[in-house]
Amino acid sequence: MISIEEKTMTAYAKSFEQELNLRPVPTCSVFLSDGSLKPASFQETPIQLSASKSDLFDKSFPKLSIRSKNVVLEAVPSFVESTNKRIAVLFSGGPAPGGHNIVAGIRRICGELNTVFGIKSGPKGLMAKDLFEISLSEVDEILNTGGFDFLGSDRTKIKSDSQYKRVKDCVKEFNLDAIIVIGGDDSNTNVAFMAEFLADEGCSVIGVPKTIDGDLQIDNYLPISFGFDTATKVYSELVGNILKDSASSQKYWHFVKMMGRSASHVALEVALKTHPHIALISEEIAEKEMSLDQIVSQIAESILYRAGKGKNFGVVVIPEGLIEFIPEFRALIDELNSVLGKYKVEIAALPGKSRESFVQTKLRVSSSQLLKTLPEAIKNKLLYERDSHGNLQVSQIPTEELLVSMVAKKISESKSADGFEFEEKQFTLNENELKTMQSFKFASIHHFFGYEGRCGAPSPFDAAFTYNLGLLAGSLALSDKTGYMAAISNLTDGGYLTAIPLISLLSEEMRDGEPRLVIEKALVKMESPAFKSFKDNRISWAKQDGFISPGPIQFWGPLSKTLPELVVLNEDYKTSSFSLK
Amino acid sequence: MISIEEKTMTAYAKSFEQELNLRPVPTCSVFLSDGSLKPASFQETPIQLSASKSDLFDKSFPKLSIRSKNVVLEAVPSFVESTNKRIAVLFSGGPAPGGHNIVAGIRRICGELNTVFGIKSGPKGLMAKDLFEISLSEVDEILNTGGFDFLGSDRTKIKSDSQYKRVKDCVKEFNLDAIIVIGGDDSNTNVAFMAEFLADEGCSVIGVPKTIDGDLQIDNYLPISFGFDTATKVYSELVGNILKDSASSQKYWHFVKMMGRSASHVALEVALKTHPHIALISEEIAEKEMSLDQIVSQIAESILYRAGKGKNFGVVVIPEGLIEFIPEFRALIDELNSVLGKYKVEIAALPGKSRESFVQTKLRVSSSQLLKTLPEAIKNKLLYERDSHGNLQVSQIPTEELLVSMVAKKISESKSADGFEFEEKQFTLNENELKTMQSFKFASIHHFFGYEGRCGAPSPFDAAFTYNLGLLAGSLALSDKTGYMAAISNLTDGGYLTAIPLISLLSEEMRDGEPRLVIEKALVKMESPAFKSFKDNRISWAKQDGFISPGPIQFWGPLSKTLPELVVLNEDYKTSSFSLK
Repeated sequence: MISIEEKTMTAYAKSFEQELNLRPVPTCSVFLSDGSLKPASFQETPIQLSASKSDLFDKSFPKLSIRSKNVVLEAVPSFVESTNKRIAVLFSGGPAPGGHNIVAGIRRICGELNTVFGIKSGPKGLMAKDLFEISLSEVDEILNTGGFDFLGSDRTKIKSDSQYKRVKDCVKEFNLDAIIVIGGDDSNTNVAFMAEFLADEGCSVIGVPKTIDGDLQIDNYLPISFGFDTATKVYSELVGNILKDSASSQKYWHFVKMMGRSASHVALEVALKTHPHIALISEEIAEKEMSLDQIVSQIAESILYRAGKGKNFGVVVIPEGLIEFIPEFRALIDELNSVLGKYKVEIAALPGKSRESFVQTKLRVSSSQLLKTLPEAIKNKLLYERDSHGNLQVSQIPTEELLVSMVAKKISESKSADGFEFEEKQFTLNENELKTMQSFKFASIHHFFGYEGRCGAPSPFDAAFTYNLGLLAGSLALSDKTGYMAAISNLTDGGYLTAIPLISLLSEEMRDGEPRLVIEKALVKMESPAFKSFKDNRISWAKQDGFISPGPIQFWGPLSKTLPELVVLNEDYKTSSFSLK
Repeated sequence: MISIEEKTMTAYAKSFEQELNLRPVPTCSVFLSDGSLKPASFQETPIQLSASKSDLFDKSFPKLSIRSKNVVLEAVPSFVESTNKRIAVLFSGGPAPGGHNIVAGIRRICGELNTVFGIKSGPKGLMAKDLFEISLSEVDEILNTGGFDFLGSDRTKIKSDSQYKRVKDCVKEFNLDAIIVIGGDDSNTNVAFMAEFLADEGCSVIGVPKTIDGDLQIDNYLPISFGFDTATKVYSELVGNILKDSASSQKYWHFVKMMGRSASHVALEVALKTHPHIALISEEIAEKEMSLDQIVSQIAESILYRAGKGKNFGVVVIPEGLIEFIPEFRALIDELNSVLGKYKVEIAALPGKSRESFVQTKLRVSSSQLLKTLPEAIKNKLLYERDSHGNLQVSQIPTEELLVSMVAKKISESKSADGFEFEEKQFTLNENELKTMQSFKFASIHHFFGYEGRCGAPSPFDAAFTYNLGLLAGSLALSDKTGYMAAISNLTDGGYLTAIPLISLLSEEMRDGEPRLVIEKALVKMESPAFKSFKDNRISWAKQDGFISPGPIQFWGPLSKTLPELVVLNEDYKTSSFSLK
């Protein structure tokens, strides 16, 4: 946790943060019942969401099921003021742009008559009772700034009885009426369990949907999680610049991996904004059951086609989660996890190189063949680098380097193959172009963008979205609602503010071999307008250099109101500018 | 080369490029003699620069020496219009933001009565006679956009007689009156030679100072080359975001390498803008003759001190050229180049591992010891990966990974050392803090930023600077001046526009074992105000998290006029906002 006082700022940068602090953030009318800021109250809508039908569910949520009845609440203006409430807020998991505005919204909606505590360093700080009172003047200084550094964050999952007991102790010691958790799908799952656990303590627990991955979405109520817009705009700035660079220097293929642990929303959004020559969407690969070799061939085809046209450059966008969506790769990983566990002792006794041969004999033929095709460095990672549970850390696999290496090999094979033909019908080369293609030398550079985007100053959309999510979450807490997630839809039309019963989002999934109730990640849907738009255009992007450099986020001027492209497309908005008021 | 027509743009991005096109760019008054755009003319100033005293110089520039007399010219308003001139422009080397505005400035100052040709793909295109006529409407569409993709670029050096002959053929075929070369120090050296070569052909050659590295500077006349401002602002945005991320997540040290092949201006500027915990400046390391071990120890000290204070995070900024500025490393590389060349045959005959031992016996003791301390991967690069001339490609050494690995080792040694003491007197820890330090686990992530910044849309400063450099270069060409570089100083006070005789910038240097006349790279000076400001503050940055996230480049609003910090400091400007008018 970095205190505000500690910062020594130059005139230059001070003015940037100060200017951001001064940028007006819109307040939705539901919080302005009499013209000044007032917490909203809540009324039931006619919408009852379905709940998971399982023993596990009934056992887990006896209290919340009865209380919320799975009914969606909507925020309405109120003239009643809550007083003397004590509300605490924490960040959970990786940072996302806009977190500070949520804290600002909560603090301001609670006003002078209630107390707001910041919990330092996430769930860990909650258990360690590391709380401090947040003043109204403090939030003026964090308004519109990036990062989670005002409070800090942490990834601890509150699971064990002793952890829950420490939470209860903290609630009692600080006499808390509510805890607001700003986090992703897992953290919001935890909110549901904590809300159930604290239901009889008079302490509400409220969730706010955070994730730059964009995989926390709820049909009709939450088109996107906060942070996605800013992060994808930062990545799009960089990919746009690299696209320009590739066309200016005319000698490199850039392979760019994008953060997004599971879903490919980030890669899709960046593709829609920048029109790269090639972009992979994991969900499509899973749907089509593509093999690694097919993916590699498809990339190589585009590269070779362009080489024939004299264009020895381009950009390939790769989602971080790709590998786990390739069915044969997923199978290989599962088999390796099982084989390496089962024969741990035998394998450890073997000398270096014979380990691989031993493991090979224990794999199914298809997995064994796939393993053989992988570059040495990747093979070593798969065989020898495991986490403390003996599992492979899939996120540690440098997918971008794997693809570069396999694509290079495929290109050199294809060039020397007799009678090479493109699978893609739109790729045709005449004889001269085929010769040009054959003399092409593949040169590549790879990048990984993730940390660069998680702490940018929130885009005007994320700033407005999170500030109002904060006002909403604060209002829920002041109204003693528990087990809800704050949500805003109708983003181009003033905003529709609701509270979603978290238990209605849970479904049963196997995790670490156990059935668990979790919030399912929203994946890219093949039938979504955003994916279709990408699919309809990608061949022309590969062929014609229709790329775009969308530039950096603008906080002032004519370009400062844009929404994510995939939100505009999927929600069928008539404008790409947000309007929250 | 990407034609404008080929681009298929979405409404979203089209508006970005269109809005950029519409952003007004200031025109210096010297080009507005009667209120409308007119080429400037030139008069001699009293300033005569000194020329290199060497036989090589006298031999190389008999014509230019007489013509320019090494006198600086200044641009003055003119009422005469040139007509029927035929001027060609090319990009040379890596792209830098603002290149398109130079082309726009040249095209517009030449107006309807002269012809401007774009040369495709740099010097290669000049020799291949790949020219096309640029229309006035075309430059409206590239105004303020990033990249060199309007023309493309290339790194070919024009050296041989046959290459010079092809240039002359092109000049004759297109009946060119002038060639304008937009390039870095090497390209501008080439401009001088080409100007001399074409002196009797009636074809002028003019240079425009490009390089994101910022190492093309001329005292009193050129505070900075174009592209530096935009590139460092992009890198500073990213480093600022990562600083926020490190303080938000509180678990990683990020090692960030910055492009800048030789000088450390980029790293220094980014440090001045973001106040990272640690930043290395190659020139200081050379000046102090620091060893690699000393550098590693210094980094480890800051990390350990912060660990004692419970701050297990931070950012280290590393200049790309570092290794060649470490005297012992420079010596090792030189010795390896010589040994590997001399014993090529013997080494090739040896089996894998014994090669290293063989090479070790041929090195001086100090070089041999340094080699032994290096991580395997780096050692392998030094020993086995050479370019076609048998030389090491120093830029291929992943300095950031080298430092991460050596710092990790140093940290674990220091933690377990009895009676560990900090060299830096300002780092003191009490007993509890020392225990905290000892339980610290070092976790790191590394990044390299380079391609991300070379093709950003030019910052408002770079856009204004380059547009006026274009107007100036065009005016020089129309005035039949040859062998000059366009330069602008007084950046906060309207701009002072001059033409610097390129031969006055040349000095003799050994390159590839031969004496050559080259433009010396401007390095970071230890006595410069910018370096001193960094030096005075860095310990407090390491201790107190005084970091700054300066955000992305703003094209509109209150933050759109800033100059590079090091220019403001070194030029002793009273404001950080540029003013060209």
